[in-house]
Amino acid sequence: MDILAEANRMKAAGRPIISLAVGQPSASAPEAAIQAAEVALRTGQIGYTDALGRDDLRRSLADYYQSRHGTAVDSAQIMITTGSSAGFNLAFLALFDVGDAVAIARPGYPAYRNILKALGLVVIEVPVGPETQYTLTPESLEREARAAGVRLKGVLLASPANPTGTVTGREALERLASWCDDNKVTFISDEIYHGLSYGVDEASAVEFAPNAIVINSFSKYYRMTGWRIGWMVLPKSVVRAVECVAQSLYISAPELSQIAATAALGAGEALEGYKADCKANRDFLQKRLPEIGLSLLSPMDGAFYAYVDVSRFTNDSMAFAKKMLLETDVAATPGLDFDPLDGHRAMRFSYAGTLAEMTEATDRLGHWLEKL
Amino acid sequence: MDILAEANRMKAAGRPIISLAVGQPSASAPEAAIQAAEVALRTGQIGYTDALGRDDLRRSLADYYQSRHGTAVDSAQIMITTGSSAGFNLAFLALFDVGDAVAIARPGYPAYRNILKALGLVVIEVPVGPETQYTLTPESLEREARAAGVRLKGVLLASPANPTGTVTGREALERLASWCDDNKVTFISDEIYHGLSYGVDEASAVEFAPNAIVINSFSKYYRMTGWRIGWMVLPKSVVRAVECVAQSLYISAPELSQIAATAALGAGEALEGYKADCKANRDFLQKRLPEIGLSLLSPMDGAFYAYVDVSRFTNDSMAFAKKMLLETDVAATPGLDFDPLDGHRAMRFSYAGTLAEMTEATDRLGHWLEKL
Repeated sequence: MDILAEANRMKAAGRPIISLAVGQPSASAPEAAIQAAEVALRTGQIGYTDALGRDDLRRSLADYYQSRHGTAVDSAQIMITTGSSAGFNLAFLALFDVGDAVAIARPGYPAYRNILKALGLVVIEVPVGPETQYTLTPESLEREARAAGVRLKGVLLASPANPTGTVTGREALERLASWCDDNKVTFISDEIYHGLSYGVDEASAVEFAPNAIVINSFSKYYRMTGWRIGWMVLPKSVVRAVECVAQSLYISAPELSQIAATAALGAGEALEGYKADCKANRDFLQKRLPEIGLSLLSPMDGAFYAYVDVSRFTNDSMAFAKKMLLETDVAATPGLDFDPLDGHRAMRFSYAGTLAEMTEATDRLGHWLEKL
Repeated sequence: MDILAEANRMKAAGRPIISLAVGQPSASAPEAAIQAAEVALRTGQIGYTDALGRDDLRRSLADYYQSRHGTAVDSAQIMITTGSSAGFNLAFLALFDVGDAVAIARPGYPAYRNILKALGLVVIEVPVGPETQYTLTPESLEREARAAGVRLKGVLLASPANPTGTVTGREALERLASWCDDNKVTFISDEIYHGLSYGVDEASAVEFAPNAIVINSFSKYYRMTGWRIGWMVLPKSVVRAVECVAQSLYISAPELSQIAATAALGAGEALEGYKADCKANRDFLQKRLPEIGLSLLSPMDGAFYAYVDVSRFTNDSMAFAKKMLLETDVAATPGLDFDPLDGHRAMRFSYAGTLAEMTEATDRLGHWLEKL
């Protein structure tokens, strides 16, 4: 957050900042989404919707699971949310009680930890690394729960993951979901980077885990961050409970965004075009980052992040990120944001932007790192 | 919620439903807001903003307090929120700890109670009625806190209020805020219906209560419900804490809505035109409702609600609302939604719609009530 604010200040002061710090596509939403919004602005009233969201969008998402994952999902199980942020908050509030222990991966998305703590839940950070292919396993969950002296009530896993880019394979995901079922642990599958993976198969928990809560978003693959729109797939038994909390806490997701998202779902070519751009960036960085001394901590399988080792240069990724920004005008995110224990030796580079930005940024960094 | 769902089902089935059940203007957002959104859709990228919101909107809101209330507010104290719903949630999360006692008025907006309970806070419902001009007073707060055996940590008051339409005068509001200050109680002033009051003066807590948290919204006077956009004025000492929670829980408010709201703030004529429509509805209902046997429980000073006594006809407002909907095709909200103790004898009628709807609805109700 501080790096981002400083980068924005420097940019406003005329510095040639390249930001690889933010998980946000630099391209606009698909044209179909923008057109649908334009029509709605002129023809409809933008009002509250049902707390569960507009029926047309919910039905389109049910079709999406049928066509993309070959799985029948009842639209009654789908809830539209104000971004995936609302999905996480609702899942945590509706499924857990104060004091419940919920496991997340370390490194991982910092808002998980912050929201869980703000709601009075106990966060169990489970380290992931090469020995577990950077994902959570039943064994690592059992080990960390035992070490913390808690019984887990929930497990939250993102695939593709932020900041590691890890895609958890179908078999590993299914094994984890089964373990959760067997142990009466609520499994929350964060699939907000679905659509953005490269040469690996993307499994959704809907395929094999009817008790899982699946959270997804239009922010990444659909390029609609600022529209604040996402969705959840809920087990039938919890729909009503989540709906009631959502009614009080959000009333409904922004209606214009719901209308635009319905159109975005059908914008196949525009979506795959952006994915191809991300893949080109990824192919470039996968080769280039190690060449300039930034070796990859995890394979770049999905999302739009490279998580790299900076221990050759620093033992303090926060100070490193600040110095790098000041001396190269390139912003990236210190690993400490994602991993309070081992993140001091890591940095996250977002490649949601353009190939020209990736090229220029790594050229600057290459020269700078040579002199360090 | 159930009445609303039933009314929607009946409407879809072709019944000539008039809904006086929802607190939502039937008119669209001001033209200036729609035009600003159209331009932004084509020229800008709709992205994440700072957690506090866009600077232009925050500065415009600071100007609003200067021109409307003659009070200097630093734009650094203003936070843009995803509707006032987010404002309440953020205030509760950032200012209170689990188990803290917060007082609200009964009858009052049901989401207050639901959000507070969902966050593990203790809700103290303080009855308001003719003896306190339907508002909270230091005496009633002290009495109810004593009866409940708690020390209050927070007080939340809406003016204009939902469902009573009560506008708390400047003197009474200032007295309440002073009492909160003296007793180290956080005062939260819900001002989301500001702009919609009739023949009475609207005081804002910003004028005299620097420690208060003020919550406002573009949903009502600005007619932007479905855009999910509102704001808070925060004491400087809590801005950073609220910002951090907001960053994790919301990332930011929808950017297109922020842009449109900035334009809406300047749409004076369109805003006052809607207020005039509401006033015409109010003048009509204020006379007509008592004529058909629905006497007013509180003066219709603000917002767009009439809260009426149905004890002549029923002792169960929920059953009454259902029967009324089925037999007259007019939907309104049972008092039980706002007041779990005394709401069985009350109904809320929203006059956010058109005068033609008010006329037709009261004609139908007049005939129906005659025969009851």
